[in-house]
Amino acid sequence: MVSNKQVILRNYISAGFPKETDLYVTTGDIELKLPEGSNGILVKNLYLSCDPSMRPRMKKLEGSYVNSFTPGLPISGYGVSEVLDSGNPEFKKGDLVWGRTGWEEYSLITAPHLFKIQNIDMPLSYYIGILGMPGMTAYVGLQSYVVGSAGSKDKVDLLKNKLGFDEAFNYKEEPDLNVALKRCFPEGIDIYFENVGGEMLDAVLLNMRIHGRISICGMISQYNLEKPEGIHNLIQLIVKRIRMEGFLVLDYYHLYPKFLEMIIPRIKEGKIVYVEDIAEGLENAPTALVGLFKGHNVGKQVLAVTRK
Amino acid sequence: MVSNKQVILRNYISAGFPKETDLYVTTGDIELKLPEGSNGILVKNLYLSCDPSMRPRMKKLEGSYVNSFTPGLPISGYGVSEVLDSGNPEFKKGDLVWGRTGWEEYSLITAPHLFKIQNIDMPLSYYIGILGMPGMTAYVGLQSYVVGSAGSKDKVDLLKNKLGFDEAFNYKEEPDLNVALKRCFPEGIDIYFENVGGEMLDAVLLNMRIHGRISICGMISQYNLEKPEGIHNLIQLIVKRIRMEGFLVLDYYHLYPKFLEMIIPRIKEGKIVYVEDIAEGLENAPTALVGLFKGHNVGKQVLAVTRK
Repeated sequence: MVSNKQVILRNYISAGFPKETDLYVTTGDIELKLPEGSNGILVKNLYLSCDPSMRPRMKKLEGSYVNSFTPGLPISGYGVSEVLDSGNPEFKKGDLVWGRTGWEEYSLITAPHLFKIQNIDMPLSYYIGILGMPGMTAYVGLQSYVVGSAGSKDKVDLLKNKLGFDEAFNYKEEPDLNVALKRCFPEGIDIYFENVGGEMLDAVLLNMRIHGRISICGMISQYNLEKPEGIHNLIQLIVKRIRMEGFLVLDYYHLYPKFLEMIIPRIKEGKIVYVEDIAEGLENAPTALVGLFKGHNVGKQVLAVTRK
Repeated sequence: MVSNKQVILRNYISAGFPKETDLYVTTGDIELKLPEGSNGILVKNLYLSCDPSMRPRMKKLEGSYVNSFTPGLPISGYGVSEVLDSGNPEFKKGDLVWGRTGWEEYSLITAPHLFKIQNIDMPLSYYIGILGMPGMTAYVGLQSYVVGSAGSKDKVDLLKNKLGFDEAFNYKEEPDLNVALKRCFPEGIDIYFENVGGEMLDAVLLNMRIHGRISICGMISQYNLEKPEGIHNLIQLIVKRIRMEGFLVLDYYHLYPKFLEMIIPRIKEGKIVYVEDIAEGLENAPTALVGLFKGHNVGKQVLAVTRK
């Protein structure tokens, strides 16, 4: 038996920003050996990912493509882990994996849907970021010329000077998003990668070009609201003959080997720059996760449970 | 010189249902001969179409694909007309045409974008309905199994018993559109043809199936509002990976001969049933047009200026 620190959801959070007190850290214990006859795997968690998509799981959800967290139990999400014991022929002790795991030091995963990490010359934490679900999501959505929007001057500078965006603006400082978009896109927007929702989507709809396309995979501005904001400019879909389509990266993981083949050389050559914001230790897990919704992180928010 | 009765827009109508007093009928006069050197055409208007899409043109529009009407001048729309005089080599005296014309007895059309009516064994009024822009719009949107929604018991009966809809409901009598849709589509909606907007769109989004498609060419529930209603359930586009795409029939008129080839035999065989609601005389034009937004018409609202 060893001790097992865990991050627990206290209660469902229906609306509003999650607070640090909505989560608590406790210490249980765990046998570092699979139960007799188990075909699951036992892992030691190395890195955990703070993702906006965890927010809906803090509500009581019905009929969604993800399950709610359970109050009183550890929350879960994407992580990088090391296999300690395996009853599954696909994994063996010592394997490094990424995928769904618990927010705790050690997890017993009964039905593992995990990717084995083959390219270990990359930082392991990249597998919950640029080489994992978020990177794959961006890859599925588009590959193109980009104007970015971020919530601080530092982030805007980062977009323009380090990450290679052609243009960027600070949405918190713009008195009128419509004006900001007109400035950045004097001839209109061909493609919008929707991760924000609300006011931004309404302003974008006004600035789309004829036959423009909107690829949607998230709406972070809506996750803390009890009732989503209304979108008022959908008539633009007709006027501009716009195609708007939602997607989930879940449907595209068969392309994952192709994605890695494309992206790893580009990271190595410095053509794609990746920025992480790493918090250390499960004690800091609540702060890291709730900070995400206030924009405290600069770059991909990662939690290092223990360093490999 | 002959007298020329005309239907005039009094002033822009920014919000609210148009009232009969927003329009007035007056009598001008017109020379029944083209001005010297004109390459336009002079027509006698036979049938005028009352279309929901005329409502936005009563506002002061900017940057739309149609122009606003001009207060003090006759309104315009789709009509069936007879050519009285032509300076354009494509048209000659006696031709029957359909397309954009004025709400008046005689119109001088300077840049004619009109279709010549070839199949004169069909009722002429059909060319502003099933054989014109509305029919062509439906053809472009989809050809499929259908559940309809209408605003009275008589209309619902018509949909089910005469027009061949598989199912239909009265949206004015349903306490909860979501429940109505669940009843009609226990396994969800594959394709929604959007002409309504507002609450109906929000309820439909909740009932779409994974990879469903929404084809949008109108939002009649929004045309009388100062500010469009907000749509709150767009997150369903992601959850269900829905494609939602606007279109305008304007982009597809190259398919018009194919459309006629498909639809005329079906009308003749009675496989497609078409219902018209014909008002007589320009005096009744305001009543016919404003009635459209209250659902007074049963079938396609047509105004017969004079019978051919």
